[in-house]
Amino acid sequence: MINYPFGIQIDETKKEKTNKNSYKNRGLTLESLLNEANSYYISVDKALIYKKPTPIQVVKINKDNIINEAYFKSPSTTDYNGIYKGKYIDYEAKETKSKTSFSLNNIKKHQITHLLNVEKHCGIAFIIVYFTVLDEIYIYPSFNLNKIIESNKKSISIEEFRTNGHLIKLSVTPKLDYLKIIDRIYF
Amino acid sequence: MINYPFGIQIDETKKEKTNKNSYKNRGLTLESLLNEANSYYISVDKALIYKKPTPIQVVKINKDNIINEAYFKSPSTTDYNGIYKGKYIDYEAKETKSKTSFSLNNIKKHQITHLLNVEKHCGIAFIIVYFTVLDEIYIYPSFNLNKIIESNKKSISIEEFRTNGHLIKLSVTPKLDYLKIIDRIYF
Repeated sequence: MINYPFGIQIDETKKEKTNKNSYKNRGLTLESLLNEANSYYISVDKALIYKKPTPIQVVKINKDNIINEAYFKSPSTTDYNGIYKGKYIDYEAKETKSKTSFSLNNIKKHQITHLLNVEKHCGIAFIIVYFTVLDEIYIYPSFNLNKIIESNKKSISIEEFRTNGHLIKLSVTPKLDYLKIIDRIYF
Repeated sequence: MINYPFGIQIDETKKEKTNKNSYKNRGLTLESLLNEANSYYISVDKALIYKKPTPIQVVKINKDNIINEAYFKSPSTTDYNGIYKGKYIDYEAKETKSKTSFSLNNIKKHQITHLLNVEKHCGIAFIIVYFTVLDEIYIYPSFNLNKIIESNKKSISIEEFRTNGHLIKLSVTPKLDYLKIIDRIYF
């Protein structure tokens, strides 16, 4: 801590942190970052990528068309899909508090199968994982996912993300400019 | 009506109808036909096309995770999307009782904009309309839709569907083998 005249105190560690590529210090969730990025891409006509609605099983609707009994259902596919540079793009987004690995319990087996199927059909498929404590967001392509599944692993280590995944650095507009990484991997 | 011996009566008009390519006589909805077709395409690894969940705004959830107040929201995009032969495919499905035209009131303006955007991004985009009384189902590509919108028309006539749309004839497996038509139009 440095004491400046007039009683101003600047915490140098904090100063450094806010200068860093930090999502955490801004209190941002992965969903809000992706929504901002996708809205931006649509607005500049770069890509058309939307989040799918949460699947809900409606049981009762009253006469005013208000749903008064419904249940959350398990999604049959993934969170986001759309089109980028003429290619079909499909991904699942997840956050984890772990500092060491991403547990595959966080993602349903049929969702992984779906991503691998998309790849087989020549689409772009990946998971995007936000390690909230580490403050790091990675794109992890489906072609690496396949390897993990075949080796019967229960989680993907942070080292694996750092080696075969792709870190997304904080940008200005949009903050999470993940298509820049997609360009590097697929185009 | 022909009177056969033993009191058997066969309605010749009905007989002819059931022999025809008829969806109506089987009591099928367009949604059930599309679901059957898409499930079939996934099972034989021909395409990955899914219906998006209905968007619902959840207001109250009780302690057992049961939703007890929620509202239907207007969809931001279309009903179905996915990948076919490496291409992004996106469409909206509608039924109409009209025998003469399909009113554009049945489809939201932003949904039409979305379909035209998909086309601009080199995806396959169309509407699929079931004229239930006529018992005819048509694929109407987005490149024709553009023409209709530009001329400020409020509906698409059945003649227009018959001229620039593509009738889907009843098949065996799947009943609504609409990708056969997509092959003819786009590949």
